[in-house]
Amino acid sequence: MTGSETGFAELWESLLPVGRTPAGYRRYSWTPADLACRAWFAEAAGARNLPVETDRNGNLWAWWRGLDSGAPAVAVGSHLDSVPDGGAFDGPLGVASAFAAIDLLRERGFTPARPVGVTAFTEEEGARFGVACLGSRLLAGAIEPAAAAGLRDGDGISLAEAMAAAGLDPADLGPDDDRIAGLAAYVELHIEQGSALDGLGAAVGLAAGIWPHGRWRLEFAGRADHAGTTWIADRHDPMLPFAATVLAARAAAAGGALATFGKVIAEPGAANGISSAVRAWLDARAPDEATLDTLITEVSAAARTAAAEHGVALDVRRESFTPAVSFDPALRDRLAAILSPASAGAAPNGGGIPVLPTGAGHDAGILAARLPTAMLFVRNPTGVSHSPAEHADLADCLAGVTALAAVLADLAGP
Amino acid sequence: MTGSETGFAELWESLLPVGRTPAGYRRYSWTPADLACRAWFAEAAGARNLPVETDRNGNLWAWWRGLDSGAPAVAVGSHLDSVPDGGAFDGPLGVASAFAAIDLLRERGFTPARPVGVTAFTEEEGARFGVACLGSRLLAGAIEPAAAAGLRDGDGISLAEAMAAAGLDPADLGPDDDRIAGLAAYVELHIEQGSALDGLGAAVGLAAGIWPHGRWRLEFAGRADHAGTTWIADRHDPMLPFAATVLAARAAAAGGALATFGKVIAEPGAANGISSAVRAWLDARAPDEATLDTLITEVSAAARTAAAEHGVALDVRRESFTPAVSFDPALRDRLAAILSPASAGAAPNGGGIPVLPTGAGHDAGILAARLPTAMLFVRNPTGVSHSPAEHADLADCLAGVTALAAVLADLAGP
Repeated sequence: MTGSETGFAELWESLLPVGRTPAGYRRYSWTPADLACRAWFAEAAGARNLPVETDRNGNLWAWWRGLDSGAPAVAVGSHLDSVPDGGAFDGPLGVASAFAAIDLLRERGFTPARPVGVTAFTEEEGARFGVACLGSRLLAGAIEPAAAAGLRDGDGISLAEAMAAAGLDPADLGPDDDRIAGLAAYVELHIEQGSALDGLGAAVGLAAGIWPHGRWRLEFAGRADHAGTTWIADRHDPMLPFAATVLAARAAAAGGALATFGKVIAEPGAANGISSAVRAWLDARAPDEATLDTLITEVSAAARTAAAEHGVALDVRRESFTPAVSFDPALRDRLAAILSPASAGAAPNGGGIPVLPTGAGHDAGILAARLPTAMLFVRNPTGVSHSPAEHADLADCLAGVTALAAVLADLAGP
Repeated sequence: MTGSETGFAELWESLLPVGRTPAGYRRYSWTPADLACRAWFAEAAGARNLPVETDRNGNLWAWWRGLDSGAPAVAVGSHLDSVPDGGAFDGPLGVASAFAAIDLLRERGFTPARPVGVTAFTEEEGARFGVACLGSRLLAGAIEPAAAAGLRDGDGISLAEAMAAAGLDPADLGPDDDRIAGLAAYVELHIEQGSALDGLGAAVGLAAGIWPHGRWRLEFAGRADHAGTTWIADRHDPMLPFAATVLAARAAAAGGALATFGKVIAEPGAANGISSAVRAWLDARAPDEATLDTLITEVSAAARTAAAEHGVALDVRRESFTPAVSFDPALRDRLAAILSPASAGAAPNGGGIPVLPTGAGHDAGILAARLPTAMLFVRNPTGVSHSPAEHADLADCLAGVTALAAVLADLAGP
């Protein structure tokens, strides 16, 4: 392996133990595991003489100033937090690849004509505070700072409290227009969360766009009672309408959309008691917003009907929503041309690098509303994601680094 | 109020703050709240000069020796632990009433001709370690000591570890035949967990028997995947067969049985991930064992079919089971005669004290296999139980104390 390849492998290996449990990764924002990820970021940047700053929303930036011509910067990175029991690649691959791409460019004697910023956005998964892409939403002004500060984790700790405990001032939370204005583009490299590249025999692809998607919280409020003494007819058991809603959501998604209940909390959670309440989260995605609206309308109606049947109250609240994202077409075409040497100058889909749509949200999708953004995907042979089984081969990771270096050489070149 | 009435009220009031949260009581065995309940028990016994012992299984005994003729003792009590977010009465009412009944008998100058033991059994609700009536099961030899010692709570702490932390030796766990042999009878007073007494206009009733009942753990094992990138057809989502099983259980119980899913855990529990596994607990009860068997067979078959449809593995395990309990008929008739002065000598159901069947398990049901046991119920005007809304009026509680004193005067009399 070349020096930069060894550098990537070392960088990657040194992050692997952080937040790893037998069930998968648990790197939730502002927990000790996340602080260890941040320390890893600072060490990786320090080893490369890249000064690090934490922005007012807790996102990390490591700067390669180069010639610093005063031109707006190119940001490149991803996130370090994980879903519960997640895999090693979702997020960290993009950050490690950004550092390794800088190594590769330096190996080649390249000096950027504008600053390059390696970024790690906070709470991309929403695993602790419930709102995905929280750090980039705050930066871009896509969420009210007070609403974000008040988000609470499962133990009742607010984002403001968690950030204060980590030494940040939550009063600083909010949009950072100067920082946005100082960016020419943001490029995020990510492991593919499906197996389309594998099917195409390609190590690296580009993102076409992101499906509109969101998260809805359904709270079914019934009445706690004894499981052994309350007749069926006297019950107000919220588990029943919840179950009916799970099946209704699957039916509603059958026409080519996605609907998932992956999180459910039964209160108080006694095996010998009827629940007082069942709270569940619906993740829904569709190729377009009209289809997504229809899906949500159908699921809500089914939930309402089932709740009424059981004398259970229902509250449906949208917790987050991301409209359809089309990444900047000009930037995408430029990257396609860079990364498809055989077809350079041809149409981007004309036999060059694969361009894939995705149902997954990303910080690049949030930032797309404020600046040109693009995404690179790295092949995931099994397509498994958000699981410890998530995997990319080292050779493909290195192909991703090489592609990212080519992109930076172009975007930050003279 | 008389002295013993004031005594009951003081005893009751002093326990109310222990383990109380805004959502209800959380008194799980061997936690700080439970240790505080045990301290309350020791203080109540000490104030009455009743020596206290903790048996090898962690159950508490306070002894009123009286004349101590060498005749076997009469035990009277209940439990102090609670379900999650439970009420104040389920368990503690029986223990407080036992102390207050002794106060009342002493006020009347009564001295027992055989020992009277006030008991508080451990982990009756099974809220921490998953097996209901754990303390009485261990005492009676109805559970293997090693199996009990290895039961783990939600944090992975075993019963053995929790008991050792409280200063007990888990090597002592197990049947205590000498103690059983030293008991002539066990009488448990309990708040009614339904509203039958209210319908009959009676403050106090007797238990006829306990429905056969048990707890089954269903584990649906699927495959964790990204909610935004995994096509519906590629999913192995265990939430779907779980939902189908909830609905099937309700349908199977429609013929006069009870089936409840009050506890469910989705792993890893990410709102944007497909679950790797869903674990759920089915509480099922029926008037007779054949009906219960049929119910479990139907629910298991529905769960298997739904799991197979979704490519999900299913494991069904019975965690606990209590056969139908008929309380000792001779003891019940004797209590009915004592408590139905108008109909003394007549048939117990001939217009005297109400005699009610119940679907709820109790330590008195476990111990019924080893010695004569009986239960008194105190009116619950709303019928709500296992909830902070659970309530009995003070006047009815005092009627329960009076009834319990009458029972003790007879059973422990000369």
